[in-house]
Amino acid sequence: MTETTETTEAAVVAVPGGQHEHDDAAGEHDGPHGYASDKTGYLKRMRRIEGQVRGIARMIDEDVYCIDVLTQVSAVTKALQAVSLALVEDHLGHCVVDAAKASDDAGAAKVREASEAIARLVRM
Amino acid sequence: MTETTETTEAAVVAVPGGQHEHDDAAGEHDGPHGYASDKTGYLKRMRRIEGQVRGIARMIDEDVYCIDVLTQVSAVTKALQAVSLALVEDHLGHCVVDAAKASDDAGAAKVREASEAIARLVRM
Amino acid sequence: MTETTETTEAAVVAVPGGQHEHDDAAGEHDGPHGYASDKTGYLKRMRRIEGQVRGIARMIDEDVYCIDVLTQVSAVTKALQAVSLALVEDHLGHCVVDAAKASDDAGAAKVREASEAIARLVRM
Amino acid sequence: MTETTETTEAAVVAVPGGQHEHDDAAGEHDGPHGYASDKTGYLKRMRRIEGQVRGIARMIDEDVYCIDVLTQVSAVTKALQAVSLALVEDHLGHCVVDAAKASDDAGAAKVREASEAIARLVRM
Repeated sequence: MTETTETTEAAVVAVPGGQHEHDDAAGEHDGPHGYASDKTGYLKRMRRIEGQVRGIARMIDEDVYCIDVLTQVSAVTKALQAVSLALVEDHLGHCVVDAAKASDDAGAAKVREASEAIARLVRM
Repeated sequence: MTETTETTEAAVVAVPGGQHEHDDAAGEHDGPHGYASDKTGYLKRMRRIEGQVRGIARMIDEDVYCIDVLTQVSAVTKALQAVSLALVEDHLGHCVVDAAKASDDAGAAKVREASEAIARLVRM
Repeated sequence: MTETTETTEAAVVAVPGGQHEHDDAAGEHDGPHGYASDKTGYLKRMRRIEGQVRGIARMIDEDVYCIDVLTQVSAVTKALQAVSLALVEDHLGHCVVDAAKASDDAGAAKVREASEAIARLVRM
Repeated sequence: MTETTETTEAAVVAVPGGQHEHDDAAGEHDGPHGYASDKTGYLKRMRRIEGQVRGIARMIDEDVYCIDVLTQVSAVTKALQAVSLALVEDHLGHCVVDAAKASDDAGAAKVREASEAIARLVRM
């Protein structure tokens, strides 16, 4: 489906700062990412969220009452926030801890970067 | 895809309080729903969000750096919150205003119901 | 205390859009405000929150552990959000409902204004 | 003022888990707290927030328009969230980094504890 692919591409491009710049800013990071140990779990959660998003579109298409649509949108938002919080914890427990052990500068850079991500999470 | 359909079904069932109970609580509501005037716009937004969610799954599958995944999850969460806020505004402008004009009791019930939905939005 | 008064003044000035402009935008509003029926309750809540804020300053001054300070800041933030949600409900139930009954334009203007306030609440 | 002191006391008691339990859970922590390097800055921010809270009470007392009160409550909530985010960053950069360097177990415990605090921040 061309349309969907384009949409996704646009979304990924929208990420401020490409993914490679982070390594420059926050020090090299060769090991596996924080979420690597539970990749299957994360993929399952994202697939479930995808299904919920599709469910909301169907509710709108079937003229379900606004408040019920709203409740469902809140539920999906909550599910996404739970994913964010799990990613933050995995990131702190792997990338940040590893950087802290490697050097003071690497640790400080990773803490800075993580804090900015947490701020985006809180302020949305 | 059987799996996806089941996921969605589960999500819809998870809505606390079926959609028909609201009418009892907040008075009859015969007119079109708040979002009816821009159904196409909402469906487009939800499809775009679905594509973004799929994009995040792909990022995880391709071992993209945690912080970049996190940034993208925050972007989708923000997009969902924008949908919520638009739904709230449409709901207030149609369902709540109509109820207020119909009777004091109907207006009060709709305000109560809308306030609970707003609280779910703020507290997540 | 001159210093405190100045601080407060600065805060009030920081409100985007003076309080009188709203009436122009959203129609005349002669009746009592939404929160008028429970002014004492709101004042009591704000006094309690003021005490909690002072308590956090004392925790910092006494070098209490970061996480405990953070927990307390979250509790106060939650208390402020609860006040916001109560204000929104009172506003919808009085000002918005009254405007809806007065005229379509007045109702629409108040809904617009309330929706913007709710957006500020959700996005912070 | 007895009343204010009691309010504050109640608030501090409301913190789930006393401050001493954390040390058991997350390992000894002898050094200064994360915010120690900018204690004066934090105290200044909290005093400013206290003044803003008092300003909101005055707005309510003087029957200022609901939406303006609401805007000001959102501004104070935002200021408190900014304090939370600064505390999180200082905590990660000092307590968590120090624990990570001390031992794997100490690091893991501090990451767990910090993640719970971040979750309280996001979910409120």
